[in-house]
Amino acid sequence: MKKVDLSFQSCKAEYPESKVVLFSVPLDATTSYRPGTRFAGNAIRVESIGIEWYSPYKDMDLKEHKTVDIGDLDLPMGKVEESLDITYEVTKKILKDNKLPMMIGGEHLVTYPVVKALVEKYPDLRIIHLDAHTDLRDEFLGRRLSHATVIKRCYDELGDNRIFQFGIRSGDKNEFEFAKNGHTFMQKFDLEGLDNIIDQIKDYPVYITIDLDVLDPAVFPGTGTPEPGGITFKELLDATIKFEKLNHVVGADLVELAPMLDSSNVSTVVAAKALREMILLLHMQKK
Amino acid sequence: MKKVDLSFQSCKAEYPESKVVLFSVPLDATTSYRPGTRFAGNAIRVESIGIEWYSPYKDMDLKEHKTVDIGDLDLPMGKVEESLDITYEVTKKILKDNKLPMMIGGEHLVTYPVVKALVEKYPDLRIIHLDAHTDLRDEFLGRRLSHATVIKRCYDELGDNRIFQFGIRSGDKNEFEFAKNGHTFMQKFDLEGLDNIIDQIKDYPVYITIDLDVLDPAVFPGTGTPEPGGITFKELLDATIKFEKLNHVVGADLVELAPMLDSSNVSTVVAAKALREMILLLHMQKK
Amino acid sequence: MKKVDLSFQSCKAEYPESKVVLFSVPLDATTSYRPGTRFAGNAIRVESIGIEWYSPYKDMDLKEHKTVDIGDLDLPMGKVEESLDITYEVTKKILKDNKLPMMIGGEHLVTYPVVKALVEKYPDLRIIHLDAHTDLRDEFLGRRLSHATVIKRCYDELGDNRIFQFGIRSGDKNEFEFAKNGHTFMQKFDLEGLDNIIDQIKDYPVYITIDLDVLDPAVFPGTGTPEPGGITFKELLDATIKFEKLNHVVGADLVELAPMLDSSNVSTVVAAKALREMILLLHMQKK
Amino acid sequence: MKKVDLSFQSCKAEYPESKVVLFSVPLDATTSYRPGTRFAGNAIRVESIGIEWYSPYKDMDLKEHKTVDIGDLDLPMGKVEESLDITYEVTKKILKDNKLPMMIGGEHLVTYPVVKALVEKYPDLRIIHLDAHTDLRDEFLGRRLSHATVIKRCYDELGDNRIFQFGIRSGDKNEFEFAKNGHTFMQKFDLEGLDNIIDQIKDYPVYITIDLDVLDPAVFPGTGTPEPGGITFKELLDATIKFEKLNHVVGADLVELAPMLDSSNVSTVVAAKALREMILLLHMQKK
Amino acid sequence: MKKVDLSFQSCKAEYPESKVVLFSVPLDATTSYRPGTRFAGNAIRVESIGIEWYSPYKDMDLKEHKTVDIGDLDLPMGKVEESLDITYEVTKKILKDNKLPMMIGGEHLVTYPVVKALVEKYPDLRIIHLDAHTDLRDEFLGRRLSHATVIKRCYDELGDNRIFQFGIRSGDKNEFEFAKNGHTFMQKFDLEGLDNIIDQIKDYPVYITIDLDVLDPAVFPGTGTPEPGGITFKELLDATIKFEKLNHVVGADLVELAPMLDSSNVSTVVAAKALREMILLLHMQKK
Amino acid sequence: MKKVDLSFQSCKAEYPESKVVLFSVPLDATTSYRPGTRFAGNAIRVESIGIEWYSPYKDMDLKEHKTVDIGDLDLPMGKVEESLDITYEVTKKILKDNKLPMMIGGEHLVTYPVVKALVEKYPDLRIIHLDAHTDLRDEFLGRRLSHATVIKRCYDELGDNRIFQFGIRSGDKNEFEFAKNGHTFMQKFDLEGLDNIIDQIKDYPVYITIDLDVLDPAVFPGTGTPEPGGITFKELLDATIKFEKLNHVVGADLVELAPMLDSSNVSTVVAAKALREMILLLHMQKK
Repeated sequence: MKKVDLSFQSCKAEYPESKVVLFSVPLDATTSYRPGTRFAGNAIRVESIGIEWYSPYKDMDLKEHKTVDIGDLDLPMGKVEESLDITYEVTKKILKDNKLPMMIGGEHLVTYPVVKALVEKYPDLRIIHLDAHTDLRDEFLGRRLSHATVIKRCYDELGDNRIFQFGIRSGDKNEFEFAKNGHTFMQKFDLEGLDNIIDQIKDYPVYITIDLDVLDPAVFPGTGTPEPGGITFKELLDATIKFEKLNHVVGADLVELAPMLDSSNVSTVVAAKALREMILLLHMQKK
Repeated sequence: MKKVDLSFQSCKAEYPESKVVLFSVPLDATTSYRPGTRFAGNAIRVESIGIEWYSPYKDMDLKEHKTVDIGDLDLPMGKVEESLDITYEVTKKILKDNKLPMMIGGEHLVTYPVVKALVEKYPDLRIIHLDAHTDLRDEFLGRRLSHATVIKRCYDELGDNRIFQFGIRSGDKNEFEFAKNGHTFMQKFDLEGLDNIIDQIKDYPVYITIDLDVLDPAVFPGTGTPEPGGITFKELLDATIKFEKLNHVVGADLVELAPMLDSSNVSTVVAAKALREMILLLHMQKK
Repeated sequence: MKKVDLSFQSCKAEYPESKVVLFSVPLDATTSYRPGTRFAGNAIRVESIGIEWYSPYKDMDLKEHKTVDIGDLDLPMGKVEESLDITYEVTKKILKDNKLPMMIGGEHLVTYPVVKALVEKYPDLRIIHLDAHTDLRDEFLGRRLSHATVIKRCYDELGDNRIFQFGIRSGDKNEFEFAKNGHTFMQKFDLEGLDNIIDQIKDYPVYITIDLDVLDPAVFPGTGTPEPGGITFKELLDATIKFEKLNHVVGADLVELAPMLDSSNVSTVVAAKALREMILLLHMQKK
Repeated sequence: MKKVDLSFQSCKAEYPESKVVLFSVPLDATTSYRPGTRFAGNAIRVESIGIEWYSPYKDMDLKEHKTVDIGDLDLPMGKVEESLDITYEVTKKILKDNKLPMMIGGEHLVTYPVVKALVEKYPDLRIIHLDAHTDLRDEFLGRRLSHATVIKRCYDELGDNRIFQFGIRSGDKNEFEFAKNGHTFMQKFDLEGLDNIIDQIKDYPVYITIDLDVLDPAVFPGTGTPEPGGITFKELLDATIKFEKLNHVVGADLVELAPMLDSSNVSTVVAAKALREMILLLHMQKK
Repeated sequence: MKKVDLSFQSCKAEYPESKVVLFSVPLDATTSYRPGTRFAGNAIRVESIGIEWYSPYKDMDLKEHKTVDIGDLDLPMGKVEESLDITYEVTKKILKDNKLPMMIGGEHLVTYPVVKALVEKYPDLRIIHLDAHTDLRDEFLGRRLSHATVIKRCYDELGDNRIFQFGIRSGDKNEFEFAKNGHTFMQKFDLEGLDNIIDQIKDYPVYITIDLDVLDPAVFPGTGTPEPGGITFKELLDATIKFEKLNHVVGADLVELAPMLDSSNVSTVVAAKALREMILLLHMQKK
Repeated sequence: MKKVDLSFQSCKAEYPESKVVLFSVPLDATTSYRPGTRFAGNAIRVESIGIEWYSPYKDMDLKEHKTVDIGDLDLPMGKVEESLDITYEVTKKILKDNKLPMMIGGEHLVTYPVVKALVEKYPDLRIIHLDAHTDLRDEFLGRRLSHATVIKRCYDELGDNRIFQFGIRSGDKNEFEFAKNGHTFMQKFDLEGLDNIIDQIKDYPVYITIDLDVLDPAVFPGTGTPEPGGITFKELLDATIKFEKLNHVVGADLVELAPMLDSSNVSTVVAAKALREMILLLHMQKK
């Protein structure tokens, strides 16, 4: 008899044979407003029966590609540093095995250990960052490791001209000035110019981090800090198609779904569909 | 003393004097994901007090046209074939009496018996189909009569080049190829080219079937299989205006509202307003 | 062809043949906290398909008794006095035709015109009043006609020792003292002593007014002013059984359901089931 | 690397070593009112992290007993008979391997194939049935296999004096009379007399089927046909303690959770906790 | 020790030093459909911790400007005329003290007394009106003071060519004709032409009244009369930027948020963010 | 002009004149399951307009007693130890000024610093603890300061026979044994024996900590870890009446309301009403 298997849509390959490794990081510790992202991974898994395995956008089928879903990482509740260490170690292992990490948050802070592991393998890493929020504070409420500082921490690893932010519409004045001063590229409010940036960095190793609150709360209310004025789902889909021009995507994440904040469950479906497209994007990469 | 009358907004004419006959088909038997469409008709009726009877889009007033609302059909619960037969017979009767059928689903399968009755009267019938899903499977989970096969069943009645699909963004690879092979016209993702198609078929008898999940879940979360990346309500309204160029609309339906899946009730209001526009469209037809 | 008929569960008799007349009064004008009771009547009608027509509590069947449902009264929105007048006139007509009125609120104020009409026919009328709130203010926020003054207004018609209040757990100190001074009988917090009162007034004409917020918000969250610490549904059912010992019930009401405040819809089902029991109680009366 | 494992709370043993086999049957085809039970199994699995593995009621710990969770059965959507056959076959296999089946519904109809398999092994089987509804119709809406006929179908297998119903408060008059005529034992409205029945049948093989709508909707709104006036969760817990006096429990089920109908998720937690107690009850059985 | 202070985001200046005075008017008396706007002010206050004080749209910071939040006005519940009088008196006082009023509704009727006070100070006042509804009825359900007549009442004060309506998509035929006859400027369905109007009236004193239901229900479901087909939040933001070209804005309001109708709370966040932009707009005015 | 004042119901005295000091501690950092208690204080404040200031249970009126509401403490987000220090310092100050602290959580951990401050003033302090959970772990997920260890931490301050636990129905086996070994008094599942304990400790200084999840989720779904099988609100009210026999209550708290988890808002009303009773209890203490 089989045992229960609630892997994400068709992602039922074994680890050794898989090109893409899907995992979720149920960390939800530094959220300042409405928490709940720790439940995202399994909510997406359960809800994924509602979406098709075939993508008409990429004309590709999840079933025809090997993906393993290793589930939620086991984290010591409430211990931020140790949780990040575990995430870092898992990512290291995946990279060492020459597989591509596809992470589901959790809060955005979980992007940091993944980037840390990636930059060790790919010193010239670039990051494409879709988000409503700058996340460039140097510390937030006394913490250097926070959902509001995560891109600043990535910046500390990468330095100037490596991070490309889109859709940003909320933050402290200082954060916007940090970008204006040229430390990061920042496209406020929308995704204009994404083609240009992609063209510019297409031969570098690129990590894509998508804070789903880049979407307008109309389409994605299920997140801790909804920020009106965001992009539509079609614009996000369009970005996932543009990403196909990148020659070397080395990993990706989708963060900040808080499923219980949307009683219609649509936010979870949105995340599941975006995840399908991103997994397929990773499968388009040459190994 | 009057008896309770919860007809849809101002549709309180008697049957003999009515040009348009409104009815709802509470069938909800083959839904694969989240059910609940059987409650759509009466939810729309109750909610219709929240919308005006005057349409500024068509500059027409529901009150000035004779419509009868005959309510939910009485169906034998859980018996799919018999329910479809009853729907077929009611439609036959309406057509025989030279009235125009305006149906509210129920799941999309209920479109099939209406089309069957129509094609007997109008052998050269064309169908405009707005939907998120292809609905072109030949069978689904072992069933030939299913919400996922309904357009294929209509195709079986009509043959090639008769069905015009718009907004499609979800389905099996085979279904997309069925369209690509020319059996149906399929506009993926949006309503582009609707004008052209309307121009092309404007002198044929046309049935319009609108699966409301063609709308983005942002505006219409109350449906069983929400599919992110859909059209806006303005785009749907725009389509209802374009339909005015059709010279011979012979009936229409709105299907797949599942009211209890949207606790804000907005989805039901959306359906009610779309229904008002479609009823008015039918009243624009020459008799 | 029939027209749409959304009468409450099986209450599809015609007016002349009916012993009980069901009507709803969508008045919701003086509510001080969370409004919404104006939608109660039709919500109960639509939801009534979820309950059986047979009551195992009374071993009686709705189908075997003649009840007409005349629906929501047509009220001039926002005009309290005129709305009460219409309610009064409808009740007068029902009483004149020797039928029994069964009313659904609306806010509790709608009880007043019904009582006014009844007291003209039955000068020695008694009232059994189940409620969380005293409703004995002489005026509330400057209004003499208010949901918070309704029982005081009934008292003005009836005088001392005619009103029997149960379940009361919220009000101004003065209101509790008004009862303590003997103007009304008041059982605080629960239904203890209901048998005694019934025994004492069983040969008088009795009107029963049930503000559904007498129920604990656990079982009935869908009301404007939920007051924790109420009775269970079983205790309410038990009361409806005790009412069978009354020899002359002349009418009844159920008020203060605000359906949209309970997204689970259970509150509406609770009201529908209580309504079934009360209609049957009226049918047990000798004509 | 491990793969995703969303088994119910600590039920992570392998099949061969397990005494109890947990499985869920996502059948939701004949529900007459509000559907959604097909999602119950996985909702309970995901939510089970919120409950402890230790039961202070039984002073037992889930972790110390071997249970395997084999997940949702793979059913052909919409095909009732075949789905029941599969459920029957799985139960046969479990019984043949001398393990105890613990089933999660799905609609109540799924109890029938389990009972059919059990009665083949245990011809003198008795059933304890907790429910709001009689479920004794011989057919419902033209179907002999329906959530409303399931206990009648079990009766057809077992005959008189074998089925013991508690908490019943809704049904057709005929159904109540069927019980009154002595075909089943029926305790209306509550669990009184459960001790006596347990004492009477304690040496027979007993199957326990719990339709969770036996609970009052106050504590369990997340079900298709909520029936006010039910038992409290404490009363249900009390029953699970009384069941300890049965010497030969051969299986059990919990059915009719429809998780999406309760946005607070409490219904799912209620089901998860009841499930823990029932699994532990099965582990108390001598093998 | 400080006392509780729940002022809107950073609006914690004292009255004498403040340039802008924020207040809310919890009037909710004439709403014809779903009520609840009386709770808007405090819901926005509590929710405002979720938005930043810095606006990247205006590159301005709420913290650097003096705003006092005087909270909900104390209104006599249910007394429409007196409530309007109080609102009028408060506005008079604010204007006399040479401060700018920023009002939160309540239903739209509360705009009328503010306009009345403003027109006394600024006889050549213009009004920019964003709304889904015409609000031009002369009376509604027998009332001259109603949420559905409010712009007509303003018109009575101002006369022809003074009111500029945008986004209108619902109303009676007569109302649309009133505009067509040139009494008001009306842009149906969207905000096209706003630049032109702003250019035309930029040197007049202008009051801006925003009924938030001008937004599509996708982004703003939390309102009494949601009207599908509205503008996006980005279009609203865009309007607030265009307003910067007005040289003499003398006050503004945001009305018709009914927070409890949106369980995701996003509607309240939308209102809070729009409010931040409008307060900043007022601070851009020369004193 | 007044500034906004959203104090809890009538608690608008100034600090120096007040006998009772109400404050809320928005700490929500160690919650293991569903978070959100950080919003409780202000949710209760806003909702408190829905409850009366007069208590028929105590025949006392909030308006006649001096209470100051100092609002949410300003805590450094995510810094548990510092947040507890601030709570400790505020409590010290309140005690030094001879006032009585009435705290609203936040998660249960916030009880610890209050108890620490109290035990310094009252070395022979006793604690009455109502809760669903033992909270007696020595550490939880590697943390000694956690919502799951809080009573153990209090025990470390107080020692054996000082803590009296009621309603407990969830925890680790070890925790139940800790109580069984006599370190604390523990009444499992309900409040039986509360009179005896009160009688036994009535002359000691007593602190009362009420984790609102002691209530059954039927009446209180709005909490992070709902535990079915709890007490009714009437039983809680009954306890607050029994507390009147204590001669020396030195403070109290209500913790673990997570308002956004209950879309009906009833949980917040429950907390508000319980708070009224507890404030009045404190006012019954001799100074």
